[in-house]
Amino acid sequence: MGREEEEKRSKEIVLGRNVHTTCLAVTEPDANDEFTGDKEAYMASVLARYRKTLMERTKHHLGYPYNLDFDYGALSQLQHFSINNLGDPFIESNYGVHSRQFEVGVLDWFARLWEIEKDEYWGYITNCGTEGNLHGILVGREVLPDGILYASQETHYSVFKAARMYRMECVKVATSLSGEIDCADFKAKLLANKDKPAIINVNIGTTVKGAVDDLDLVIETLEECGFTHDRFYIHCDGALFGLMMPFVKRAPKVTFKKPIGSVSVSGHKFVGCPMPCGVQITRMEHINALSRNVEYLASRDATIMGSRNGHAPIFLWYTLNRKGYKGFQKEVQKCLRNAHYLKDRLRDAGISAMLNELSSTVVFERPVDDEFVRRWQLACQGNIAHVVVMPNVTIEKLDYFLDELIEKRNTWFLDKKVQPPCVAADIGSENCLCDLHK
Amino acid sequence: MGREEEEKRSKEIVLGRNVHTTCLAVTEPDANDEFTGDKEAYMASVLARYRKTLMERTKHHLGYPYNLDFDYGALSQLQHFSINNLGDPFIESNYGVHSRQFEVGVLDWFARLWEIEKDEYWGYITNCGTEGNLHGILVGREVLPDGILYASQETHYSVFKAARMYRMECVKVATSLSGEIDCADFKAKLLANKDKPAIINVNIGTTVKGAVDDLDLVIETLEECGFTHDRFYIHCDGALFGLMMPFVKRAPKVTFKKPIGSVSVSGHKFVGCPMPCGVQITRMEHINALSRNVEYLASRDATIMGSRNGHAPIFLWYTLNRKGYKGFQKEVQKCLRNAHYLKDRLRDAGISAMLNELSSTVVFERPVDDEFVRRWQLACQGNIAHVVVMPNVTIEKLDYFLDELIEKRNTWFLDKKVQPPCVAADIGSENCLCDLHK
Repeated sequence: MGREEEEKRSKEIVLGRNVHTTCLAVTEPDANDEFTGDKEAYMASVLARYRKTLMERTKHHLGYPYNLDFDYGALSQLQHFSINNLGDPFIESNYGVHSRQFEVGVLDWFARLWEIEKDEYWGYITNCGTEGNLHGILVGREVLPDGILYASQETHYSVFKAARMYRMECVKVATSLSGEIDCADFKAKLLANKDKPAIINVNIGTTVKGAVDDLDLVIETLEECGFTHDRFYIHCDGALFGLMMPFVKRAPKVTFKKPIGSVSVSGHKFVGCPMPCGVQITRMEHINALSRNVEYLASRDATIMGSRNGHAPIFLWYTLNRKGYKGFQKEVQKCLRNAHYLKDRLRDAGISAMLNELSSTVVFERPVDDEFVRRWQLACQGNIAHVVVMPNVTIEKLDYFLDELIEKRNTWFLDKKVQPPCVAADIGSENCLCDLHK
Repeated sequence: MGREEEEKRSKEIVLGRNVHTTCLAVTEPDANDEFTGDKEAYMASVLARYRKTLMERTKHHLGYPYNLDFDYGALSQLQHFSINNLGDPFIESNYGVHSRQFEVGVLDWFARLWEIEKDEYWGYITNCGTEGNLHGILVGREVLPDGILYASQETHYSVFKAARMYRMECVKVATSLSGEIDCADFKAKLLANKDKPAIINVNIGTTVKGAVDDLDLVIETLEECGFTHDRFYIHCDGALFGLMMPFVKRAPKVTFKKPIGSVSVSGHKFVGCPMPCGVQITRMEHINALSRNVEYLASRDATIMGSRNGHAPIFLWYTLNRKGYKGFQKEVQKCLRNAHYLKDRLRDAGISAMLNELSSTVVFERPVDDEFVRRWQLACQGNIAHVVVMPNVTIEKLDYFLDELIEKRNTWFLDKKVQPPCVAADIGSENCLCDLHK
């Protein structure tokens, strides 16, 4: 099946085919189930099989930026409780089974990391990176109601989803081959819309290439175009790198000492967590504007979600306490080292590959065998795939993957009918090792 | 401190005071921590104390509609995995550590409950009731882009939040004293806006009074006002009762055989779950419209959140399998019986109280002592408080609460200077036992 056909098929699925083939149906218990124990036994066997699959899948995972290496055994006792931080983290609700004391501890840690005082920030622990972006952009829109949203074309889809949900005008900005926002194009688009305020999404690590937008240049461009600080709002989408960047030497700083409005980062990515979660930090002055506006609806409502997972803050609190800033620094350095190792070995084997300077995301030629892609759970886009080197990705694991890839690849291109794809348009001719460019 | 002053104070808090008093700070590990074990010991003691608080708080909880009685011990082994159902439940992503097979099993169960065929529905497991409402109303808006949102004034705040986020015109409809939507007022408001389609939020159990809007009368009213089925979209917010109603005899049916567009229900409420979650079911035809629209952004994006908690579906799957429709039916009957018991005992003790026919939410005179309110974690609004009788609320627990309330209340009103408040305006004079109405 060719790529085009495959794309067509995948679109058909998107447009509604209801896939029920692998589903584990819920069945009504029999009257004598409690007596026979059949159902209990059935469920136990389903769960045991499932656990095996999870172990196998966890072992062979490389493509998504999730740190799968964590041990929260000490917290398993908390699974018996329905912990819910409904509403604002800083205001206790009447529901007593919450974990706000952990949540605020975690928020303070991030506020320190991004250099904003305790009494100047507001934030909360979200359900995922998307919720952070939805919140940041909503705050931006409430501060600048007729603002235009600017985001580079390599921005995560949740930002464009936000624009559509919020009925905001949205302007896509071009990117360089590395994946960074192209500030010349940004400037041209700003100048064409000088009459309206600007809300900008800055990527601290794009999804596919791990490219970091140049925050300082974005701010400079805004200023050059005559946008005063009260006429723009910057949201930094730090999904993965928001937590890695502070520990990379030479990396430009994400800090509230610069005129930014909010930063979000995922908790299940670099930190590692059984379920998705994220951290959202914004300025108190902005959230005041938001809260005042919604007061007639329901006081204290400044989060996107109402009921909020109270376990996630405890997982984060636990890891931050154990690792500390120093522990994260070590892990970041290890990831960058291992990412370089992977890129070098790919190139040595004649495989096109790119690694952005501040990133641990190695982009390379998409393996032609979909079975291989699924086995290693690689995220793909067009002709390229990537591996995100996370703390649980060791040299041994990379060697295992590389050996298999190189071996399989020899068979894919054995008869010379199929050639490795040219990826110069994706990652630049200097990184492409196709027949034409090598 | 009077109510007014209190309200003023609470508003001040809402507008930004950063409460850090009870927070558990994250501290940097010492170099020799691993050697001394001091930090491990400190964290273990924090967690042990926290666990005690959770047990005490769980024991004394009555106000929120959360079933705190669950045992997921068999699932604690899964906490080691980063389970993420990112994107659409029906389309496998490349990330292999997911639980879609459980999720679709749960969705099928709810589809059966609400009478829609497997190939005619689409749905997903959300993070909470708010996400369900945000999704349902977004689908409604995409289907009818210039539609006006109608919701009764006792509707959950997330619905009004949606209107604001989505920049939709929103019309509030009056309610009867019981909390149900007033269809005479609805009719008047529909007729005043006949030129625009209608998106209606129907409450299957309001937050405060547990009132169930009359779905059939809502549909009848729409038809009477000349709205054909292609000019309205009904979202049913079934937060708590969406799962109880099907098991109540005489209750009007929530079913996709009626012209409704979506139903959402919370998973952590009647079912019980360590973390908030919910179930969202809509019609395939509607989600097709939505997906087609967003295709240029990212295919397969039809959920509000991107990364999605993969543990929640397994918790739900586990409980649904164990209890089945029959198990839920028994529990619903028990809750309604116990709610009647509570209401009767309150009235016998001379305390104003109301219980809607299809509900297990007992509304009564707000205790004047805030300490007592906090101890029992009662949700309050103005002069009224409520207890939601969930499966974990036994007669023994109710007796414990009632005995304490009656004893305390004797001291509150001992010197006759303070009188029990009149709540006729909140729950009707027939339910009010103040000096004037008893």
